[in-house]
Amino acid sequence: MSDVYVVGVGMIKFGRFPDRTLENLGAEAALMALDDAGQTIHDMQALYCGNVYEARGMVGQRIMREIGQTGIPVVNCSNACASGATAFREAWMSVKAGVNDTVLAVGVEKMGRGLLVRAGPEDGLSPEGILGSTTNPSLFAHMGMEHSRKYGTTAEQFAKVSVKNHHHSTLNPKAMYQIETPLDVVMNAEMISYPNTKLMCSVNVDGSAAAVLCSEKKAKQLGLMNRAIRIRASALASDPWSYHNLAMSDFNEVTRLAARSAYEQAGVEPDDIDLVELHDCFATAELVHYENLGLCKEGEAGRMIDAGETQLGGRVPVNVSGGLLSKGHPLGATGIANVYEVVAHLRGEAGARQVQNAKLGMTHVVGRGSACAVHILEKA
Amino acid sequence: MSDVYVVGVGMIKFGRFPDRTLENLGAEAALMALDDAGQTIHDMQALYCGNVYEARGMVGQRIMREIGQTGIPVVNCSNACASGATAFREAWMSVKAGVNDTVLAVGVEKMGRGLLVRAGPEDGLSPEGILGSTTNPSLFAHMGMEHSRKYGTTAEQFAKVSVKNHHHSTLNPKAMYQIETPLDVVMNAEMISYPNTKLMCSVNVDGSAAAVLCSEKKAKQLGLMNRAIRIRASALASDPWSYHNLAMSDFNEVTRLAARSAYEQAGVEPDDIDLVELHDCFATAELVHYENLGLCKEGEAGRMIDAGETQLGGRVPVNVSGGLLSKGHPLGATGIANVYEVVAHLRGEAGARQVQNAKLGMTHVVGRGSACAVHILEKA
Repeated sequence: MSDVYVVGVGMIKFGRFPDRTLENLGAEAALMALDDAGQTIHDMQALYCGNVYEARGMVGQRIMREIGQTGIPVVNCSNACASGATAFREAWMSVKAGVNDTVLAVGVEKMGRGLLVRAGPEDGLSPEGILGSTTNPSLFAHMGMEHSRKYGTTAEQFAKVSVKNHHHSTLNPKAMYQIETPLDVVMNAEMISYPNTKLMCSVNVDGSAAAVLCSEKKAKQLGLMNRAIRIRASALASDPWSYHNLAMSDFNEVTRLAARSAYEQAGVEPDDIDLVELHDCFATAELVHYENLGLCKEGEAGRMIDAGETQLGGRVPVNVSGGLLSKGHPLGATGIANVYEVVAHLRGEAGARQVQNAKLGMTHVVGRGSACAVHILEKA
Repeated sequence: MSDVYVVGVGMIKFGRFPDRTLENLGAEAALMALDDAGQTIHDMQALYCGNVYEARGMVGQRIMREIGQTGIPVVNCSNACASGATAFREAWMSVKAGVNDTVLAVGVEKMGRGLLVRAGPEDGLSPEGILGSTTNPSLFAHMGMEHSRKYGTTAEQFAKVSVKNHHHSTLNPKAMYQIETPLDVVMNAEMISYPNTKLMCSVNVDGSAAAVLCSEKKAKQLGLMNRAIRIRASALASDPWSYHNLAMSDFNEVTRLAARSAYEQAGVEPDDIDLVELHDCFATAELVHYENLGLCKEGEAGRMIDAGETQLGGRVPVNVSGGLLSKGHPLGATGIANVYEVVAHLRGEAGARQVQNAKLGMTHVVGRGSACAVHILEKA
């Protein structure tokens, strides 16, 4: 079966847009991606949309009303923080199936203010799930503490993740924040759930990102192969065991499952990966995911951040975009924003934060409840 | 590319289940479909789930918690009343892409009581959309009145749709209602929006339905070809023009677009279709869709119902299940419940309501906002 390519990407500067509609934010990224590919909405054969908070509200169709209604199939995907990546994956699948040659994938979110999770029974949370013991901040704090217990990882090592990602974001004009944030500032910020301070929690922003996917035949026909990025692997996984009894294991096991599947599909090893955009929803999560994604050996994540291996210029730069911690985390948009970032590097168009000679990049998102998506992209 | 088959179907008796969870209803249909195919959840390589009201709540994953968590990819699809059909279509696409050999598709809904639409800005409705002039009852009443204006269709002809579907449902043990409902009872029921009385509006029920999809290779390997149903066409469309200005045109044009695509894919004509499960959310809609789906010529729908052509034993029986008007309409489940019904007839297992010698069947759903899905299924 022939390969599928990303031939256009778009992303708005993440921020807070109380005066703009969700569909208007989605439309802006969609038009950027179409423009980047030299295409219009009339060239697209389907639209896949990822969103969380308005998932039942026909968000993809509302975006079509902004950019032009052409009658094409529109599919709305919801998979918590993996919603955008799931939409991207379904778009990939539709090209792989030979059903479509050119598809638009859009991820978009307007976040509520205040508490991040506007959760309730209609989100499928049990009463326990809504109570404090398993809010996301405490869950990801616990994930870090478990790593500390096993391997002696320190609060300082976790905080260094946030220092690194804030530094990276100073090089990314589309990040919400572009502010150097030294270690003492990170560690002395308001404590949310030990060891994560406020500056070690992802930023609650509005945002959108989009990608144009294309069959090999069509990419050649349109003369787009010179900037095309090949999708080498697209993996999605859910919890491999009961979430009720093992609230902690979820994000780890599901990530390992998706990563294994992605490496197998691509036929590559973790050492082959040149950069990673992973789900740093909390600083603790980034360190633990180094191991889940096989970027280092078990228990080595603390050493890895100390050695600077994951910062720009290091062995395998992670979250050069600034990550969820400083670029921001508009849930449904994040999966496609990761694709946007990796594509920019593989094309050599990432400017001041360019990872040199990047040939293979990985994206990773994990949503609670659960869904983990891992993609491996390659310079064509 | 090889064909995709439905090798198992399941559906619960539609009803009201205040004491059961959404995922429990979904799980029951899922287990029925697996059992029907002689498979278990461990044989499935992905789950696609369609739901409207809890679309952001990881419904597919919650179903997995009931039937067994195996770590497979779970995708939640939301497309208003076409949500179940969209999940079914994405499952089909994943097999067609060669990514999966065996996939489970589930549609499930627990409806609110009282007003059908718990709508608000988070459903993407404009303030106008929430007000009375474009509630669904008035929109579909208008659709009927427009047909009356153009072709002289009478209130009695519209009412006959409901008489027919209520009659059909007396033969379907899984329908919500199994009550013969004569013309005078239908016409004298409480008026909702002329010409649709209360008995000409779809029934607000909870329900679930599921299907197991399989590649040709796998179906043969498992010895399931003797009961396999081939998916000859899977089409999805959205509004081909602005919904804001032409609130009425929506359901018609989008249906014509999807139907045209389905007939083209299957390489068949409307005359070849032996039975149809179409979206009779209101009695007016069924008549108008006869023309939208090409089952009769323009303006002939009234004559078609008068002549009994769409009742069991007629030229092309429509909604032999009882339809949304009497079987019930649990939004996200409806698209897959239609597949369940057509599969039963193509297998010759529909009991008292069997359409004799059924070889080709069509399913149709249309969701507001908009999404129309049309599938053509064939006895393998």
